[in-house]
Amino acid sequence: MRLNATSEARTRIGFQGEPGAFSEEAVRDLLGGYARAVPCPTWDATFAALAAGSVDALLVPIENSLAGSVLRVYDLLLEHGLWIAAETIRNIEHHLIACPGASLDSIRSVESHPMALAQCERLLAAHPEWARIPAEDTAGSARHVVESGDPTRAAIAGRAAAELYGGEILLEDIRDDKRNFTRFVLLLPAREVVPGADKMTLAMRLVHRPGALLDALQPFARHGVNLLKIESRPIHGCPWEYQFFLDVGAERAQDLEKALDELRQGAEEVRVLGLYPAAPTLDCVEAQGGLQ
Amino acid sequence: MRLNATSEARTRIGFQGEPGAFSEEAVRDLLGGYARAVPCPTWDATFAALAAGSVDALLVPIENSLAGSVLRVYDLLLEHGLWIAAETIRNIEHHLIACPGASLDSIRSVESHPMALAQCERLLAAHPEWARIPAEDTAGSARHVVESGDPTRAAIAGRAAAELYGGEILLEDIRDDKRNFTRFVLLLPAREVVPGADKMTLAMRLVHRPGALLDALQPFARHGVNLLKIESRPIHGCPWEYQFFLDVGAERAQDLEKALDELRQGAEEVRVLGLYPAAPTLDCVEAQGGLQ
Repeated sequence: MRLNATSEARTRIGFQGEPGAFSEEAVRDLLGGYARAVPCPTWDATFAALAAGSVDALLVPIENSLAGSVLRVYDLLLEHGLWIAAETIRNIEHHLIACPGASLDSIRSVESHPMALAQCERLLAAHPEWARIPAEDTAGSARHVVESGDPTRAAIAGRAAAELYGGEILLEDIRDDKRNFTRFVLLLPAREVVPGADKMTLAMRLVHRPGALLDALQPFARHGVNLLKIESRPIHGCPWEYQFFLDVGAERAQDLEKALDELRQGAEEVRVLGLYPAAPTLDCVEAQGGLQ
Repeated sequence: MRLNATSEARTRIGFQGEPGAFSEEAVRDLLGGYARAVPCPTWDATFAALAAGSVDALLVPIENSLAGSVLRVYDLLLEHGLWIAAETIRNIEHHLIACPGASLDSIRSVESHPMALAQCERLLAAHPEWARIPAEDTAGSARHVVESGDPTRAAIAGRAAAELYGGEILLEDIRDDKRNFTRFVLLLPAREVVPGADKMTLAMRLVHRPGALLDALQPFARHGVNLLKIESRPIHGCPWEYQFFLDVGAERAQDLEKALDELRQGAEEVRVLGLYPAAPTLDCVEAQGGLQ
């Protein structure tokens, strides 16, 4: 796949979800008109589509600021031996969507994925007369509501879903917490690095002893490499080993390489999952009040 | 709340979900007959119940081996200034449940929380004739299916839900991945430490520079304290500061205290979220095949 190319035959990017899903919006953010987003019903089907060659790459959520890392995606990424070649960060906005002609007064039920319902609890609590109806995904709930033509039904989904299915947004940005960001990554079947790549994602295993992580992090500090994200993976029942996922960044690619070489000497096992340009950070939505 | 006491009036433990939920099973694991589990419909309602004094403590999931940390719970814990006083780890088993008299041949639809449906994708893919129906929670789906008396409907939920509502388990342990563990924590309104507490949960903020985390971890290594879990929190748009959640463990409480004193001198902000006995680790379900 040539990420920078223009082409008549648009590159097919698989995503998990229905048309209008946040992942589809992320495909447009990252690749614009160059890509054609291909919906896949489940995670297994998404990764199988790439293995079968029916799509050229995948765009998948890997981290959300409220829900944390999507460890299932890390597992599938490792299992299928894929490569992270790009990232994009989206501000996830939820809207209250209904069919044309509906109004807040006509609504009697609100449907969406339970995670989206949970992220808009304050609005729902203020309207106890609205029944909560779980759905398998956000975009699909918008489609069902609009197709029904029933003014008593509303859905919670993103703007793309409202536009795609011809729904009306009755209330904008109804999230309880505006700090709702999702980071998506582009996965390719093999290593490909674009110019300007300054961020690396790694998986590693360490023997479990005091100081093991400290020792593993030394090479990064020594070469001026920033640690951007770290997460240990709970392997319950295997208390003497554990797994880490790291994102690191440096202005100079050779600093990353040097740190990696030294890291490999100390860790049990290290695997580079990708090397790509860091996405621009979004505006700081609101200052957090500190920990206390 | 006196965790070791026996009492006529059983301690009321709030949990998010319906009766028969995995959180309710976790209450029994941890406190046995001493506690009375009180279902709360939403996260906000759960934490509000403790604030209002209508329950004495909360038991909430904080980490899952497939889905990662429940960052929303960390946020609420910080916001409400609560204290982690105990933990328990459960192996989350999903079963296919129907009303008495139903059989695999009579099933036409399967309902559950989308996360549970996603965790049993292989079974569902093998039965394309079964419609997938999303529900707001696993235990509630079991209740609805059994109450309907309809032999074409099945639910995916835990054993407690099957037993509570009188359902029959048609297929046992239908998870795609047997490494599905959830860690639950007991939250109290104020600091309380039981004898044998050897594990500490911390939140901290650090200035973002190469080596900042390394420096912060030095005190733990120096005092022989094990790092059991680490997670950085994405604060997108605030690139010069970031937040960490740590679990650390030591055989001697004074080692933890010494490391903490030194940590406080280097970190921007440190808050102890709890001190409690580490739960026994579960049996290693299957060896992972390594990273490669």
